Amino acid sequence: MTVEWNHTDINAPIGVFDSGVGGLTVAREIMRQIPNEKIIYFGDTARVPYGSKSRETVTRFSKQIVRFLSTFQVKTIVVACNTASAYALDELERESDIPMIGVVKPGAKAASEVTRNGRIGVIATEATIGSKIYNQYITELNKDVTIYGKACPLFVPLVEEGLWEDPVTDEIAQRYLSELIDLDIDTLILGCTHYPLIRSTLGRIMGEKVTLVNPAYETARELKEMLGERGLLNDHAPALGENQYQFYVSDTADKFKNFANSIIKYGILSAKTIHIEEY
Amino acid sequence: MTVEWNHTDINAPIGVFDSGVGGLTVAREIMRQIPNEKIIYFGDTARVPYGSKSRETVTRFSKQIVRFLSTFQVKTIVVACNTASAYALDELERESDIPMIGVVKPGAKAASEVTRNGRIGVIATEATIGSKIYNQYITELNKDVTIYGKACPLFVPLVEEGLWEDPVTDEIAQRYLSELIDLDIDTLILGCTHYPLIRSTLGRIMGEKVTLVNPAYETARELKEMLGERGLLNDHAPALGENQYQFYVSDTADKFKNFANSIIKYGILSAKTIHIEEY
Repeated sequence: MTVEWNHTDINAPIGVFDSGVGGLTVAREIMRQIPNEKIIYFGDTARVPYGSKSRETVTRFSKQIVRFLSTFQVKTIVVACNTASAYALDELERESDIPMIGVVKPGAKAASEVTRNGRIGVIATEATIGSKIYNQYITELNKDVTIYGKACPLFVPLVEEGLWEDPVTDEIAQRYLSELIDLDIDTLILGCTHYPLIRSTLGRIMGEKVTLVNPAYETARELKEMLGERGLLNDHAPALGENQYQFYVSDTADKFKNFANSIIKYGILSAKTIHIEEY
Repeated sequence: MTVEWNHTDINAPIGVFDSGVGGLTVAREIMRQIPNEKIIYFGDTARVPYGSKSRETVTRFSKQIVRFLSTFQVKTIVVACNTASAYALDELERESDIPMIGVVKPGAKAASEVTRNGRIGVIATEATIGSKIYNQYITELNKDVTIYGKACPLFVPLVEEGLWEDPVTDEIAQRYLSELIDLDIDTLILGCTHYPLIRSTLGRIMGEKVTLVNPAYETARELKEMLGERGLLNDHAPALGENQYQFYVSDTADKFKNFANSIIKYGILSAKTIHIEEY
């Protein structure tokens, strides 16, 4: 499928996608930092999670989503999922002329600027850690840095169960983070979009001397910069009655709406279900 | 797609499917109880889990899998996933003439026979509990029984992380099970195929007076009976060199093989990846 258009319409929406609800933490930052923009969000709730799956599968799923978002004539696509950014972004960029931005590179950049002792920890899904993508980006920016990755597969289910402040989450976080503490890191990248939701637990365990880097925030900042450079930043809010934020999912919308409303305070009026495998 | 054949070939394989690896606990029981049978196992590892997804999505996925298994001319299909049995079995049976057996009915039957005080607990995924399917089957068999359902969404990730014997699994199990203990149940159905793997934790917490019902075991027993009644029980083992057990998955095979080999001791020689959404 080829969709042709020029990505020069400042009124065009921004496409944002994730394996499910986690990317809403990125969408939330975009809403905060560039509040005039329209957003089309897609969460692949029928096939979530991505973080334990293979490069082939995550890339195949992500390509379908890019084809879906293309139908909205989006002016840019934000890959608001670390695993999809790690595994698929390069191939997505080769297949489409829509400008794209992932969450990994902005997070890597911020961490490489923040660290003072050159010891950076990354916590993420098995897939993201296995890809060593954070290592690659950070080392490109700063050769004198050492990166320590740790997969934390139980954080996503714990967050999705709402155990954001809970002794069990504390105990699991202690186990995952103890080796990073022993390694004397001074910077920790929250390399999965769910992790900012347990930021206070992570911060408490790591201690005050460790800076937590939230790629969601950095991505929204970089997105704003990129749109600004291209003259694509929307300078006025959508007209009254225009639907600024639209949400699509691959499973039914009810559960998504509940979780989404706990993250985004703008009110998610509706979410529509589509069959993503048809794209 | 219509595939026509008579389901009367005793040498035909049995199709077994699950959302991922959990159904291997059912396949294992079939291997033990009717060791002459050939099995085609499909695990939907690209789209796992099912237990937090909707009836529509689980049914759509299950239909694709039945179409895939049909291509092997299977003599019967075992829906080795509680969520798929709860949500999709009725519709699958309407669409196919292959005899099918789910894991819910055999588990319900065993529990209704085992209980003495008429108080049965069911632990399962959100989807299975929400469907109230165990209640429906058990009440059909025995009107004097009360069923108490409890969704335990963290058990699957804990099992898949290998925390079968762990203080965190103990703590989470205590929380999930405490109300069932207070309700004085004497029978507990392990209503998700992963749960038999933490059977000893569950048994310890529930205490000696509570009987744990494993639907995997009951399903293999019922399958043997059903095949016997139809004259379809294979009376001799497959020829040397014949591939008795074949495994298919929708994501890459490596991770599946590792987990599978921790459950099944027969040695999983190979697993093949297929694109299930094309069926």
